[in-house]
Amino acid sequence: MNHTAIARSWVEHANGHRDFPLQNLPLGIFSRPGQAPRSGVAIGDAILDLEAVLAAGLFNGAAKAAVEAMQGGALNAFFALGRPARVALRERLLGLLAEGSEHQGALQAALYPASDCTLHLPAKVGDYTDFYVGIQHATNVGKLFRPDNPLLPNYKYVPIGYHGRASTLRPSGTDVRRPKGQTLPAGQTEPSFGPCARLDYELELGIWIGQGNPMGQAIPIGEADEHLAGLCLLNDWSARDIQAWEYQPLGPFLSKSFITTLSPWVVTAEALEPFRCAQPARPEGDPQPLPYLLDARDQANGAFDIELEVLLRTARMREQNLPAHRLALSNTLNMYWTVAQLIAHHSVNGCALQPGDLFGSGTLSGPTPGSYGSLLEISEGGKHPVLLPSGEQRKFLEDGDEVILRARCVREGVASIGFGECRGTVVAAN
Amino acid sequence: MNHTAIARSWVEHANGHRDFPLQNLPLGIFSRPGQAPRSGVAIGDAILDLEAVLAAGLFNGAAKAAVEAMQGGALNAFFALGRPARVALRERLLGLLAEGSEHQGALQAALYPASDCTLHLPAKVGDYTDFYVGIQHATNVGKLFRPDNPLLPNYKYVPIGYHGRASTLRPSGTDVRRPKGQTLPAGQTEPSFGPCARLDYELELGIWIGQGNPMGQAIPIGEADEHLAGLCLLNDWSARDIQAWEYQPLGPFLSKSFITTLSPWVVTAEALEPFRCAQPARPEGDPQPLPYLLDARDQANGAFDIELEVLLRTARMREQNLPAHRLALSNTLNMYWTVAQLIAHHSVNGCALQPGDLFGSGTLSGPTPGSYGSLLEISEGGKHPVLLPSGEQRKFLEDGDEVILRARCVREGVASIGFGECRGTVVAAN
Repeated sequence: MNHTAIARSWVEHANGHRDFPLQNLPLGIFSRPGQAPRSGVAIGDAILDLEAVLAAGLFNGAAKAAVEAMQGGALNAFFALGRPARVALRERLLGLLAEGSEHQGALQAALYPASDCTLHLPAKVGDYTDFYVGIQHATNVGKLFRPDNPLLPNYKYVPIGYHGRASTLRPSGTDVRRPKGQTLPAGQTEPSFGPCARLDYELELGIWIGQGNPMGQAIPIGEADEHLAGLCLLNDWSARDIQAWEYQPLGPFLSKSFITTLSPWVVTAEALEPFRCAQPARPEGDPQPLPYLLDARDQANGAFDIELEVLLRTARMREQNLPAHRLALSNTLNMYWTVAQLIAHHSVNGCALQPGDLFGSGTLSGPTPGSYGSLLEISEGGKHPVLLPSGEQRKFLEDGDEVILRARCVREGVASIGFGECRGTVVAAN
Repeated sequence: MNHTAIARSWVEHANGHRDFPLQNLPLGIFSRPGQAPRSGVAIGDAILDLEAVLAAGLFNGAAKAAVEAMQGGALNAFFALGRPARVALRERLLGLLAEGSEHQGALQAALYPASDCTLHLPAKVGDYTDFYVGIQHATNVGKLFRPDNPLLPNYKYVPIGYHGRASTLRPSGTDVRRPKGQTLPAGQTEPSFGPCARLDYELELGIWIGQGNPMGQAIPIGEADEHLAGLCLLNDWSARDIQAWEYQPLGPFLSKSFITTLSPWVVTAEALEPFRCAQPARPEGDPQPLPYLLDARDQANGAFDIELEVLLRTARMREQNLPAHRLALSNTLNMYWTVAQLIAHHSVNGCALQPGDLFGSGTLSGPTPGSYGSLLEISEGGKHPVLLPSGEQRKFLEDGDEVILRARCVREGVASIGFGECRGTVVAAN
């Protein structure tokens, strides 16, 4: 798949680019001012307009069919074509964008500075499911309620997840309006209504589903990986005070549904192939996965080694020209279950997955405070504020705070790739 | 709105029809063999093809725009037009289908026996939310876990709900494949995997959202009713054993997402107008709703008086030519919150509702066993089986069992209307 570190593009700023070198080629939906959204691929600091390349006659066969399926401003129909379409398009783009390409002149006209473009959600999400497979996060949150027994008995058997809200998924850069809702103030027996006072972020991996399954037909674990289209970053903004009051007995609802932010580029399963690795061994004493979740190939190569980062920049830090402050550095290896296990579990009851469905991983905290993926964990439930370079403190997010998620894959001998950013700034409640 | 009992249709079988007299005019999507799904209205035992009536030039103005918005096999764009479009279409259909209509000849050609047609889901559901506002059900289920304190502290303040799965919503008549999943057998500490052994139905009202709201802008309680398009029946099939093991801490997931069945006709807010009534008084000692949920007009006229019925017919009952056996007779007055309160609550955090979103009410049990809306309640958690006319017993559903939900509005001086049926037959696990 041409992941060698030496492969270079004639798009000079792509070579050595933090996120989008030639080896990445993430897919998305963008628009230029006054124009309709269309499909593109990120290359360095630019976006290649795939429909313009199609119109120029530079795609044939499966690659052509792939780009034709992207028309209409959403990748769902392309996702439905599965891996062969992604591979054909990738191979063709690697050729077109590599140094020495004979089509450089024609392509140049279809290449726009990313800074001139608006990025949209890459697909129309039918259903969004949020999992809870960051075992360190589950442990940290569980400890706030049950210090001696943080994980519930089902945690190591069931990839815990719940249905999320699809209508408020938004691309990076969308403002985050502080939600209002019911909360039960400490020491009170009757709830109050007002703006959330414990607004938080959650660092998550987003998982795009490619081909679906018919209702009633489970996806076997050995085939589940074929249903992964690609990955992104996901910020599962959370209103902790609303959540604490509303979530029994049916789970989080309005505490999450006000907005969920995604990084807009789909980093494909193929681009991620060099960053696959073995699922970390379960600690001594943990149960083996049930057979429907167990596959030797998945255990050997089904995990991802992706560095994850959370940064915060307050309004005062912007005024003082201070850079964003890193709150956490974590890794997708903190997932207790693989993506294939999530897909197999989600469909085992016959639930139909559809192209363009989205999963969140759950918060991917690591084992130490410098790797915690939410302020709830960093501040231990609001007890210990974080100190910022501006001299400010934070237990939870304040209006004007911008949260930035980043991800990056690094491995010796192959080119590093990144996910781009997943940003959002908190604005005051209405 | 012409609800008088004496209004008659030239479609003779519509007059006095249990469900679909002239006064109802529910909207839906149907198809004839080999043809694409299109919009229609139920009249007696027939379906009037609205697109054929449109093609015949019999709609003008707002009614024409309404039917044009229904093209493409889904009512979403029509729902987005809100109440004025529904009212205009209803007024025109009342004229076209009333006795003495001058267009009877032209319309006859657009009228098909319902038995020759297939009914589909009326809209493409973006998000499906399931509430839990049947207070008798919440009490009955709570008692199984907490006999002395069945309702959690938030119940009378928060209209409890959670996100459901949209991809497995299906129209009446779709078979219900028994799901497989993880369960924790009594007395065990490790889960098993296999077909659900405690399969159940839930009697719910389905609520179709008309016009939506932009993300970040709550719908005030005084305007919430304007966002209701219409109602249907909803069977929230539930795998009780899977649910018990999976639902902590994030709520039900695979125990519900295998299928949810809907009655296919949208009984419009206008057809239901005569069956509005005051929200039943809260019992002495219950708190008042918080201000964002309280509106005098809603309290005075925001509830619905709709009779609900559950019937069961087993395979043996079909062999013995026994009719379906009534398991429960209940009423929508068992809702602790009005539809307007659900809409105001769902959007109060800024969550965007969209045309064609669907709410479930939660199971609408009444206070006595003859009105319980699930087998879990009737059998008290599987302890006391129901005796059936065939001599069989049921604690939970067995393969071959057919569950039928019905609803009917009855009030002196106006024509009764019904919802049609919401049926499903359990088939063996794969």
